[in-house]
Amino acid sequence: MTVHLVGAGPGDPELLTVKAVRLIGEADVIVHDYLSNDSILELAKPGTEFIDVGKKPGNPTPQELINALLVHLGAQGKNVVRLKGGEPFVFGRGGEEAQALMEARIAFTVVPGITSAIGVPAAAGIPVTHRNVSPAFTVVTGHRENGGSTNIAWEALAQVGGTIVVLMGVSERALIATRLMAGGLVATTPVAAIRWGTRAEQVVVRTTLGELGTAALKAPSTIVIGAVAAYEFLDNSITDHLVAGA
Amino acid sequence: MTVHLVGAGPGDPELLTVKAVRLIGEADVIVHDYLSNDSILELAKPGTEFIDVGKKPGNPTPQELINALLVHLGAQGKNVVRLKGGEPFVFGRGGEEAQALMEARIAFTVVPGITSAIGVPAAAGIPVTHRNVSPAFTVVTGHRENGGSTNIAWEALAQVGGTIVVLMGVSERALIATRLMAGGLVATTPVAAIRWGTRAEQVVVRTTLGELGTAALKAPSTIVIGAVAAYEFLDNSITDHLVAGA
Repeated sequence: MTVHLVGAGPGDPELLTVKAVRLIGEADVIVHDYLSNDSILELAKPGTEFIDVGKKPGNPTPQELINALLVHLGAQGKNVVRLKGGEPFVFGRGGEEAQALMEARIAFTVVPGITSAIGVPAAAGIPVTHRNVSPAFTVVTGHRENGGSTNIAWEALAQVGGTIVVLMGVSERALIATRLMAGGLVATTPVAAIRWGTRAEQVVVRTTLGELGTAALKAPSTIVIGAVAAYEFLDNSITDHLVAGA
Repeated sequence: MTVHLVGAGPGDPELLTVKAVRLIGEADVIVHDYLSNDSILELAKPGTEFIDVGKKPGNPTPQELINALLVHLGAQGKNVVRLKGGEPFVFGRGGEEAQALMEARIAFTVVPGITSAIGVPAAAGIPVTHRNVSPAFTVVTGHRENGGSTNIAWEALAQVGGTIVVLMGVSERALIATRLMAGGLVATTPVAAIRWGTRAEQVVVRTTLGELGTAALKAPSTIVIGAVAAYEFLDNSITDHLVAGA
């Protein structure tokens, strides 16, 4: 019996891994965040217990409580799935949960998921890398609480030469744009902001770095900054086809 | 009938997405790279045609030929899966294939896969982000041909403040280490290099940035640079458990 830290991917249930589906189906208890698509929970077997520790703005479950819950359930010998949106180790605080389990000597595994930082731009036709255009990409959190907007050297990041993907960056987008331009990125640098990525409701807003601070965006959005953000390797009919499930 | 650009993930067949498994099983023809685990091809239905365009050092299939092949097969109305290791849009040249298909008006979809840049460190117990330690990560190719070692401002990257994951960087590792240290990263910065990640054969070499240039590494390896590279959120018994398939 083990605790599995499982990535649920960006929203489309078909973007779960085979391993995630198997472990969800075998779980005694599923400890889950707010998921962008809760039909994923229907993959559990009858009788599975669900514990919603979803972090909602203003009313979060403290991370320490989640860590303690996982240790407690694991110590009971239950088969536990800790289901996290996206990828556990990309701003998912999976590292803290892994550390707590390791210190308590509870066996656990980590099952990667498709991170929205890559999967969401891909579903909108945007490649985060592209030959002769972007030989790197940086994924960064814009969330002040996570240290993103304060502990990142945005001016240096502007000079790296690759794509920048900002998660949880809507509220800090004016500051981020200002600092990236201070670092040398021009105001005409393409920007795409994607909401409800990989789902039928997907909305893509195209703008520029100079306009990002005042663009009408809603959280949560995945913000892509760089030359590739102007790309759209899908026409509308194909996009419809894609989000409907190929 | 459509061409599907599908990510095969880092190696473990259970890390395929549900959608990838379905599309592989429905394909008339599968155009595949060298895959780190070719048991994935056994998921195809009987009668499926396989075309190996795997790029081996010294004898690569030119990308233009692959693009033309996909357009040709798509125009025949076949159900085509273009199966690529990892994630199509992370140094997979998926953007070029998407562009060629779009220009030829061939319908296509993009199915994200788990990138080895995240999934391989995760399976070795290394989180690419960690609260109060790393609020960002950059994925970069060290491959000279892809512009990685020449078009990246490594000195600026050293100052960003997050984890650096280098793919295809073994042959250029001395140059990369020198430039990152010139940018201010100290020689004691932890480094982990992972070979055969997510597979039973997984080998993890721990070193430092100062020693990276002379460390005994073999390609292909995923190189992780930064404080998180010292982490190992799994003990050996748990790691065995993990790579054996949970």
